[in-house]
Amino acid sequence: MGLAQDKRRQRAELGALGLPVPSWCVVDQVDDAVAFGERHGWPIVLKASRGGYDCRGVWVLRASEDARQIVQEALDAGTVLLAEQFLPLDLEFAVLLARTPDGMIAVYPPIETVQENGICRELRVPADLTQAQWEQAVTSSRRIAEQADMVGIMAIEYFVSNGALIVNELAPRPHNSGHWSIEGATTSQFEQHLRAVAGLPLGDAGLAAPYISTFNILGSQDGSDPRERLCDALAVPGSHVHFYGKVSRPGRKVGHVTVAADSRDAARGAAFQAWQILEGATEDRS
Amino acid sequence: MGLAQDKRRQRAELGALGLPVPSWCVVDQVDDAVAFGERHGWPIVLKASRGGYDCRGVWVLRASEDARQIVQEALDAGTVLLAEQFLPLDLEFAVLLARTPDGMIAVYPPIETVQENGICRELRVPADLTQAQWEQAVTSSRRIAEQADMVGIMAIEYFVSNGALIVNELAPRPHNSGHWSIEGATTSQFEQHLRAVAGLPLGDAGLAAPYISTFNILGSQDGSDPRERLCDALAVPGSHVHFYGKVSRPGRKVGHVTVAADSRDAARGAAFQAWQILEGATEDRS
Repeated sequence: MGLAQDKRRQRAELGALGLPVPSWCVVDQVDDAVAFGERHGWPIVLKASRGGYDCRGVWVLRASEDARQIVQEALDAGTVLLAEQFLPLDLEFAVLLARTPDGMIAVYPPIETVQENGICRELRVPADLTQAQWEQAVTSSRRIAEQADMVGIMAIEYFVSNGALIVNELAPRPHNSGHWSIEGATTSQFEQHLRAVAGLPLGDAGLAAPYISTFNILGSQDGSDPRERLCDALAVPGSHVHFYGKVSRPGRKVGHVTVAADSRDAARGAAFQAWQILEGATEDRS
Repeated sequence: MGLAQDKRRQRAELGALGLPVPSWCVVDQVDDAVAFGERHGWPIVLKASRGGYDCRGVWVLRASEDARQIVQEALDAGTVLLAEQFLPLDLEFAVLLARTPDGMIAVYPPIETVQENGICRELRVPADLTQAQWEQAVTSSRRIAEQADMVGIMAIEYFVSNGALIVNELAPRPHNSGHWSIEGATTSQFEQHLRAVAGLPLGDAGLAAPYISTFNILGSQDGSDPRERLCDALAVPGSHVHFYGKVSRPGRKVGHVTVAADSRDAARGAAFQAWQILEGATEDRS
């Protein structure tokens, strides 16, 4: 079904399920966005209903002048649009789960996703949620998978805004937010996807270590290729580096590095160190 | 160098290094084997100097009549032979290690290898060794890797006979005794081999869980293919099943199953259960 591909339909169906979604409206003309901004207060978020990922297909409109320019350009390009309220975010996380044709479900621990300029930069597993948030996320994610009659691996992305959970998006596929599972879970998202679509029993979705840290590697701003620095990065104890075989361009996601360890500090410290080497970063962001 | 390919040369060079090897002699004619058996007592072990693995190229000679028949047949077939004393075995184990071109070495914890009819049936990690045996095995394995100027992954196989360590064989490659490392080690033997031959820093060779159990899967005696039973085997919690894409024939090694867990009983219990399902075994061997 098209639920996951079409954000307008996602919003409508998730809302109908009683799940928490942001306030939103369809935008078929400039005035739709302006009226939504006046009603909810600026800024608002404009999204393409299909095809967006990372920062593509998402615009923050700060005032009606932004709306008049950006909405018109997108409409002229033939883009189907919706607008959403701009939420103050405590954090973002994803729930990764797999479902078989006969309805068996395995749910991974929630994954904190740290965004920067609209691009996911870091995964922290498990996410720093309260017990109640964790349970609510797992319960609503199972409902979504069942409602969508989904088979295979699926990531459901959430916002936490003023302590409340809000469903952001569905991604019905092995997902960037699940890359940590290659080393960090008893069953990786890729093995799990194959088990699910083949109708085999699902594997253990538990963690292989108490804490997993993954950083996405972007092509360096100076034009250098992170692969040139692989040797130094692999010298960081426990680091696992994956490259996707893509040509490196500044800001393009070309790989990731994962460390599994006994504590948050040990995992994140090592993954951060390897990531900094790979991107050739000079600033201190730890 | 040919050290690892030629068992005659292995025995001579390891002995020259002062490492413990079984008593042995070259067998160029039937009388060489008969004299060795009379001197050391029967049975003795006859081996092809090259090309053997599992039970191939290894014969146990119980008396001079065996020697006269089997040695003559092997010599007639052009096989280069050696004879070794038959050792009473407490257990067998292997040390897996990697070495880089510039001499860095990473050593995995010793792996107990359980043989049945000359075929490795089970891996237990870590091996049940005394602290002194463990240290002696690691020390002598490092010496062998350095002496052979080996680059890449290497397995060194040992006997424990009446409490004493004896070097059995060298296998200079990713090895069957290292398959547990795919899920059971921080760095699998395959990633480690690539790091080593590429001159990259070696990865952590530590265990990913306290205990790892692997069973090799042989083609079933009734002619059925273990892959037919994959679904039931994957229902065993924590089981990871690997098939090698080989046609199943009775007794042929076609895959393995690994479980990593917090205790020996948990890991071995689950791996044994999955293995029993896959081979379609009816006897109780736990």
